[in-house]
Amino acid sequence: MIFTDACKGKKTPYTPVWIMRQAGRYLPEYMEVRKKAGNFLNLCHTPELAAEVTLQPVDIVGVDAAIMFSDILVVPNEMGMKLDFVKGEGPVFEKPVKTKDDIDGLLGDKEAADKLTYVYETIKIAREKLSDEKALIGFTGAPWTLATYMVEGQGTKTYNIVKKLIYTDPKLMHYLLQKVSDVVKYYLENQIKSGVNVVQIFDSWAAALEKSAYMEFSWRYIKDICSYIKSKYPEIPIIVFPKGIGTYLDDIDGDFDVFGVDWGTPMSLAKEKLGDRYILQGNMEPCRLYSKEATKECVMSIADTMKDGRHIFNLGHGILPDVSVENAKFFVSLVKEVTKR
Amino acid sequence: MIFTDACKGKKTPYTPVWIMRQAGRYLPEYMEVRKKAGNFLNLCHTPELAAEVTLQPVDIVGVDAAIMFSDILVVPNEMGMKLDFVKGEGPVFEKPVKTKDDIDGLLGDKEAADKLTYVYETIKIAREKLSDEKALIGFTGAPWTLATYMVEGQGTKTYNIVKKLIYTDPKLMHYLLQKVSDVVKYYLENQIKSGVNVVQIFDSWAAALEKSAYMEFSWRYIKDICSYIKSKYPEIPIIVFPKGIGTYLDDIDGDFDVFGVDWGTPMSLAKEKLGDRYILQGNMEPCRLYSKEATKECVMSIADTMKDGRHIFNLGHGILPDVSVENAKFFVSLVKEVTKR
Repeated sequence: MIFTDACKGKKTPYTPVWIMRQAGRYLPEYMEVRKKAGNFLNLCHTPELAAEVTLQPVDIVGVDAAIMFSDILVVPNEMGMKLDFVKGEGPVFEKPVKTKDDIDGLLGDKEAADKLTYVYETIKIAREKLSDEKALIGFTGAPWTLATYMVEGQGTKTYNIVKKLIYTDPKLMHYLLQKVSDVVKYYLENQIKSGVNVVQIFDSWAAALEKSAYMEFSWRYIKDICSYIKSKYPEIPIIVFPKGIGTYLDDIDGDFDVFGVDWGTPMSLAKEKLGDRYILQGNMEPCRLYSKEATKECVMSIADTMKDGRHIFNLGHGILPDVSVENAKFFVSLVKEVTKR
Repeated sequence: MIFTDACKGKKTPYTPVWIMRQAGRYLPEYMEVRKKAGNFLNLCHTPELAAEVTLQPVDIVGVDAAIMFSDILVVPNEMGMKLDFVKGEGPVFEKPVKTKDDIDGLLGDKEAADKLTYVYETIKIAREKLSDEKALIGFTGAPWTLATYMVEGQGTKTYNIVKKLIYTDPKLMHYLLQKVSDVVKYYLENQIKSGVNVVQIFDSWAAALEKSAYMEFSWRYIKDICSYIKSKYPEIPIIVFPKGIGTYLDDIDGDFDVFGVDWGTPMSLAKEKLGDRYILQGNMEPCRLYSKEATKECVMSIADTMKDGRHIFNLGHGILPDVSVENAKFFVSLVKEVTKR
């Protein structure tokens, strides 16, 4: 499997490529299935349909890996927090976490993880239908990113509620993060048992924290999860994607295989700081997909920086809904052509 | 004047300190004046009141510099774009810029800059009332940050409209940026003639661009503005604040005096990359102001990193509205105490 080979640093005939949010709104075929499901959360909850959209980009765009279709917030949802997706506002938790009692009232550990049966079912169906040459990626949100939503109740520009908690009651924040981490460990383990070949940990809101707070309130939990998974499933590659921490890559280490580089971090910097220790994934600026010329310029530049391999091609963040499918296909086939060895 | 001395690298009895957004909603006295003005834009347009809130933090919080009260968007507003502040949504331009004709329809150069009389009047009143020992800071948005609003029409999470323009029609984007830059040059010049002692260029949305795009579509215009101002007013210190470009500080140079470090960039990194060439300003994480303990920890750490001087203390972004005035005062007096020489 070229994708997992690349994750392990083995030579591959070309640099494998996938696209974050590749099963998404830019695909008309996705929009059709989503309409059938009624809404986004229903789609996550319906394994047959979730598996269908999981596989679409492999067939349509030609990527080397499928990523299970789901949302990071199903985890706090199954821990007991009522979740809605409100039009124009995104995800909203009805009752954000405020106190130790609120945290104690949530399900934890295996009990919460075992409730995510629709995810595991999606994986089983998708893995069965997917070609043996293609990898299936499982994923989770990092505890910090999940906890951000759990405390804020919804998306935020300033993160002031959750950061007030960090700076005024760090113990309570750790109590929450530990509980979320424990669920996430079992969640990833169940995903692996259900058939994923790789797992990715998304820390989408990493950049909301200053370095010292990031290391204490996010990275240590990610490291802990990686160690747990690695010790039990050493053959499963782990990708971490802490978005926006490019100013302190020197301090990043842990038991993972692939570091996802966001587009704000120059690939040359990531290579200098991490390239000897980890495979790098990324990192075209997603908006370059608006133009084939801008796409080509960036693909050539990244391919040149990473010409020694140890690389998985991707965007540096998710694909946007108004990108044309044609340009996404162009990106994928250009990567394969340019990196052919 | 200790503040301008520090900007020029002269030894000062302590490290001067101010707070971005120090004339803001966390101050009850500000809220009272704002209520009197009716709304935010009226406050910007009423020099007597704008000067009053400009001076408040000097008296109440004890900072070493006042910053003229205004908003970066008065510039596109006077170029001819109708501006509203919509509750919950922030600033909204009724008709965003889409075509070359739209750009040609806007006022430019001195003609636009000369319309900002209420800003210059605010400066004159504030400078007259301000103690001779305190500096008055003027400011502008960087052309890129201003153009972002002009093209998007309002705040954005993805910047996809303006970035589509960058990657599909870079010439048109440069045409807009050049026009905005020319206004900004005269705007800063008029501010200096009206009495400000220092100017700061805010590039709040710097991190919305990847490095290569940032250098091409933002930084070169900032450099150009700095050179223009420096050549005519060499004695006026220039502070630049491009938020979130910490991964490529090696490539940053220009004719300015002070580099504003955002809280996402470790001060030690900024010192290593820029400390010999520029005075550094910053960079406490604003949310630390929720706690005196968290504030103290950070002030001590920054003071230690910058113990050789060449530093102006500040937050690494604006103060939040729900911070207590007491904690803001604590921050300012702690800085003065800790950095006493």
